[in-house]
Amino acid sequence: MFGKYFENVRKISPIVHNITNYVTVNDVANALIAIGAKPIMADDPRDAVEITRICSALNINIGTLNEMTVKAMFATGKEAKELGHPIILDPVGAGAGSFRTETALGLLKEVSPCAVKGNISEISTLAAAFGISAADGKAGGKTKGVDADDSELINDANLAGNISLAKRLAKETGSVIIITGAIDLVADENKCYAIRNGHADMAGVSGTGCRLSAMIGAFIAANPDEKTEAAAAATIVSGLSGEIAKERIGEKGGNAAFRDAMTDALYFMDAEALEKGEKYEIY
Amino acid sequence: MFGKYFENVRKISPIVHNITNYVTVNDVANALIAIGAKPIMADDPRDAVEITRICSALNINIGTLNEMTVKAMFATGKEAKELGHPIILDPVGAGAGSFRTETALGLLKEVSPCAVKGNISEISTLAAAFGISAADGKAGGKTKGVDADDSELINDANLAGNISLAKRLAKETGSVIIITGAIDLVADENKCYAIRNGHADMAGVSGTGCRLSAMIGAFIAANPDEKTEAAAAATIVSGLSGEIAKERIGEKGGNAAFRDAMTDALYFMDAEALEKGEKYEIY
Amino acid sequence: MFGKYFENVRKISPIVHNITNYVTVNDVANALIAIGAKPIMADDPRDAVEITRICSALNINIGTLNEMTVKAMFATGKEAKELGHPIILDPVGAGAGSFRTETALGLLKEVSPCAVKGNISEISTLAAAFGISAADGKAGGKTKGVDADDSELINDANLAGNISLAKRLAKETGSVIIITGAIDLVADENKCYAIRNGHADMAGVSGTGCRLSAMIGAFIAANPDEKTEAAAAATIVSGLSGEIAKERIGEKGGNAAFRDAMTDALYFMDAEALEKGEKYEIY
Repeated sequence: MFGKYFENVRKISPIVHNITNYVTVNDVANALIAIGAKPIMADDPRDAVEITRICSALNINIGTLNEMTVKAMFATGKEAKELGHPIILDPVGAGAGSFRTETALGLLKEVSPCAVKGNISEISTLAAAFGISAADGKAGGKTKGVDADDSELINDANLAGNISLAKRLAKETGSVIIITGAIDLVADENKCYAIRNGHADMAGVSGTGCRLSAMIGAFIAANPDEKTEAAAAATIVSGLSGEIAKERIGEKGGNAAFRDAMTDALYFMDAEALEKGEKYEIY
Repeated sequence: MFGKYFENVRKISPIVHNITNYVTVNDVANALIAIGAKPIMADDPRDAVEITRICSALNINIGTLNEMTVKAMFATGKEAKELGHPIILDPVGAGAGSFRTETALGLLKEVSPCAVKGNISEISTLAAAFGISAADGKAGGKTKGVDADDSELINDANLAGNISLAKRLAKETGSVIIITGAIDLVADENKCYAIRNGHADMAGVSGTGCRLSAMIGAFIAANPDEKTEAAAAATIVSGLSGEIAKERIGEKGGNAAFRDAMTDALYFMDAEALEKGEKYEIY
Repeated sequence: MFGKYFENVRKISPIVHNITNYVTVNDVANALIAIGAKPIMADDPRDAVEITRICSALNINIGTLNEMTVKAMFATGKEAKELGHPIILDPVGAGAGSFRTETALGLLKEVSPCAVKGNISEISTLAAAFGISAADGKAGGKTKGVDADDSELINDANLAGNISLAKRLAKETGSVIIITGAIDLVADENKCYAIRNGHADMAGVSGTGCRLSAMIGAFIAANPDEKTEAAAAATIVSGLSGEIAKERIGEKGGNAAFRDAMTDALYFMDAEALEKGEKYEIY
């Protein structure tokens, strides 16, 4: 089902403006190129507002935010919003520190991101600000770091509660909500894709989430009328790249080999492989 | 012909000071080490001016410029100029935003770079400020991003016009002008090397241009009396690294494998391989 | 002997907060993950002080320091000190520029790092501020860059003098002192481990030292009662990763292949391999 969304990325080759952390920025750049998009990075307000005008999407990742880049996030986000560009928010570490939490919430309110992607700790931190908590009470912003607690990861036991959380936050914010985990959720207010692609070893590579956010930007820019499906397609492509990479490197490759093999898997991905590999349910 | 310039890099092992973007900075560091040079990065004016004194070349890349680093570029550039160090300017995204264009033009005027390297969009943006446009009218600063438009890439049909552009800009600025593309041009006011090394897949790797700028710094530092030839040698080495890498990874390697294979090809490059592989004409 | 220290890292999985340079930050992140620790980066004072509270160690690396990050280093260092977290200082380029030297010395005095790791140039620059110079007079802060002069590298001829230097500086500062070189030294005031693991080609990869500092943070966080042994274990693991990587890539791999192979070697390291490979003497 999702092949056409990927074909559109390759065909349109959208330019994605990234205001992102310096830890995984190179991976983000090469992942975008690998799927056929074009990356630009600019994070000084003087530069970023102008640069975003020549782009088709804006990816905001707060992983190493600072005073200057936060200013750029708001100023550029407002410009992108006026231009009607899709904005992706990756609230890295929301819940782990107040500067992060406040910045993520401020952006959520002021720049109207088209999509928000995080792990369950980050997303439930944002949800809590809207008075939303998971039905089972497990996901309520009790985060301790940039990683989600294992007890909070999405699995079949807590799936229903987390789907409800995602849909309610999507309704409240108007954003597509993507929650990554052993199962990935991609929800708007009416429906939720539960995606079972990916490999557990992806947690051993810095930046898999950062790459996904940027890719969601490219997919929505290339498929603006079906943003939920576009975000789901990006999430499946990311997961599939992990599966393919793992198969390729086998048991001999560590996390450095795995990182590069994932990028290479993106580079060789096509609609056929995507549709053959996609594993999802709709709720 | 160009082997000796590379041998001098390996022999002298120049320290290259880089004020460069954080997207590809690690590739720049490892590429410099691979060719036998030594990288240092410093971009706060308080640090950078002092650091440049212990170096042999200064590579200024505006790919993720901000207020602090622009101050460092000017202050450090003036210091390096007084010390007689070769300065390389990589005007990433000139033409795509006014902060970038103004910074590049300001540096061009105030710090007298020894060499300026960009794609045709970037270089023609700078040239336009000197009243220079390509004879065929195709290269006149009409850029839309950090990549050159395909219609503007240097090829045999527009070669003469672009060589003329490069030579005129070299005369006006006193800098060696390097324009990268399917054919790379390296020009001073009297002559122009048209270099046919490289592989089309190099466009699929973030940072090939950033690495080249840094390498030009190392080559000119090691060959100060023949800066045009030194820049041409660096450009050939870069292109050759792409050819060798592609041969090595074959059709199975994506852009991550290609990136590392290019660095490894630089690591194993020697004068003999360079002279065997060099493909150029002089105009 | 050192296997148990590594097992504790894997078991406890400490979160290490890194305020580090943007050149090698991705390598630092993936190296920490490879050994079983968790990386967080935060370098704006507004963010970093809070983030450090959820971590178990703080790694401060001044490789691309600037005004903002230096403020974060001091503010976060003081917070970590109050919390009793181990702080690791990597004084990159101390001696090469006054901003670096002053920052390193200021941190050494104000935040009481648990461990300080540098090459002989950097460490002897710090030692000189305490009136300490090597017995043989070779190591007295006469640095020219971020690399140590070859004439200053630790070898059997100058081993005794450098061991004395390390022990005296350890006594004066209360920190474990780690000096990297062909032989690595790990000293407290009473004893010094001289470690003969590693491979000469590690000098051809940007960031091997930065990765070691972060790893020392993880090892001490997981073994707080034996910090000298923990730092020695991290240093052995780093050297061993180079030996294993070299064996794996053979003569065909350049510095990019070597970089990734080192990370992968960390990923597959275990207590048994460590104890089989450890090469050290105690002085």
